[in-house]
Amino acid sequence: MTVSLDDVQRAAERIAGRVRRTPVIQVAPELTFKLELLQHTGSFKPRGAFNRLLGAKERGELTAQGIVAASGGNHGLAAAYAARELGVPARIFVPVTTPAAKLGKLRTLDATIVQAGNEYAEAYQAALAARDETDALLVHAYDQPEIVAGQGTVGLELLEQAGTFDTVLVAVGGGGLIAGIATAIGDNAQVVSVEPALAPTLHHALETGAPTDAAVSGVAADSLGARRIGELAFAAAQRYGVRSVLVDDPAIVAARTELWRDHHLAAEHGGATAYAALLSGAYRPAAGERVVVVVCGANTDPSTLI
Amino acid sequence: MTVSLDDVQRAAERIAGRVRRTPVIQVAPELTFKLELLQHTGSFKPRGAFNRLLGAKERGELTAQGIVAASGGNHGLAAAYAARELGVPARIFVPVTTPAAKLGKLRTLDATIVQAGNEYAEAYQAALAARDETDALLVHAYDQPEIVAGQGTVGLELLEQAGTFDTVLVAVGGGGLIAGIATAIGDNAQVVSVEPALAPTLHHALETGAPTDAAVSGVAADSLGARRIGELAFAAAQRYGVRSVLVDDPAIVAARTELWRDHHLAAEHGGATAYAALLSGAYRPAAGERVVVVVCGANTDPSTLI
Repeated sequence: MTVSLDDVQRAAERIAGRVRRTPVIQVAPELTFKLELLQHTGSFKPRGAFNRLLGAKERGELTAQGIVAASGGNHGLAAAYAARELGVPARIFVPVTTPAAKLGKLRTLDATIVQAGNEYAEAYQAALAARDETDALLVHAYDQPEIVAGQGTVGLELLEQAGTFDTVLVAVGGGGLIAGIATAIGDNAQVVSVEPALAPTLHHALETGAPTDAAVSGVAADSLGARRIGELAFAAAQRYGVRSVLVDDPAIVAARTELWRDHHLAAEHGGATAYAALLSGAYRPAAGERVVVVVCGANTDPSTLI
Repeated sequence: MTVSLDDVQRAAERIAGRVRRTPVIQVAPELTFKLELLQHTGSFKPRGAFNRLLGAKERGELTAQGIVAASGGNHGLAAAYAARELGVPARIFVPVTTPAAKLGKLRTLDATIVQAGNEYAEAYQAALAARDETDALLVHAYDQPEIVAGQGTVGLELLEQAGTFDTVLVAVGGGGLIAGIATAIGDNAQVVSVEPALAPTLHHALETGAPTDAAVSGVAADSLGARRIGELAFAAAQRYGVRSVLVDDPAIVAARTELWRDHHLAAEHGGATAYAALLSGAYRPAAGERVVVVVCGANTDPSTLI
């Protein structure tokens, strides 16, 4: 089970018109932001969700049973949004720890919300059980090829929008985004994984040679708190030589504050995590190195920005 | 005293590298946003400020006395930012009604802040007096040719970024932005002025044939509350056949809410005013009409977004 550049290119054709081509902004001579937080539902997740649902629809697997998904928030919003756009019902299984800002948005998308467990892994087990009972389509938050291929369309857009660049910094939770971007970008640039030090699942997998469960916590856990890195993400990270760095919570908070204060972008903590690597020095570019930072999520309580 | 397309083009060359080329985003098949709220200091104002300061510098008029400016906020931030970047002191005269969010930002830009009067017009008189005493450069908030030419670079970028479009909606306070955009765009598209019904200075000037003072109030008064439309804006509006529409305060509030909820953009009320014309039906595009909305300001208290 792998994902190819061809898969990503087919995803781009499939989801065209369903997702926004988000803009880039050059914020310094050698620094570009990809504003994926301006995507529908406030994160990159609709790219994978649409590719999964439309792929299933092509195969006749998208029925009146609709979809089930488990998510601490952003993936649930995206799956519910895609299901509504395609006219099928969605049941979203969320941990009880899901922030109010994300729950409130989910309620506006016509999805049935089921609270199950204290973290993503437990909500996922409940979603699996529901899928087995009903034949609904399971839309995984990160570890399905169509999800990864859909997220990879961020990388294709970057190659078109950002000119030549050396490095792209990507936040990692379950790893769907980085797996897709690494696949899309191939050897055109170095892909750097940025994880909270309190949720270092890809980092540990690369050190130990295999994904394992880990305790996860911290300010970005609601979006980057998958307990285990996806198999697809781990395989892509190894294949494309992804470099892994960690950032602590104060660095994430500082990056989010600066994104608001200096760039007028309202990012959630997970959405600010990639930038935190640059600001904190966890990733230090060489002289002249051209860096892209993917700012990937906006689902935050704006009253906490200042 | 007029501003020509050539003036705008020279402004673009002069300020290149000093201001951000802000992105556009296509939010619907026939609707594009120009994200000028992502400009340095959170509004379009640095374009005019840099053009004014750099123009004065070329003529030897920018001295160690630095600059004075009057502003309820966004222009003050921009003038202070430009002065700091060019290494000259700035004194900014603000009405006592200036919102805390803008005052707080102004304090971070090394400017000397002088509170004077209850509204822009009184602060402006104080700035004039200070200019006369010290020979500092007066940087007007809207009614100087170099200011208008600088703001017009938004229009040049739109012609490059937004493909072919029929209409551009622009919020109007003193009118520097719309004067510049109308000059840049010429007969390439219809320019529509959007003003709060509680601050309809261009609207009244076009009806009566001349700018006159008017009482101004409402939710967007801190950025669109100039008491009289600029002479340059009035002349440009007449010359380029600008169409004028008004929106009420609830429409502005609704547009700001939707920009946040559906587009993840944290706009101030003035920054949401142009979009309010579309949402409220104050401006109704024809079938197939391609519309650009300039989202022009982000200096807001984010805790009021939800």
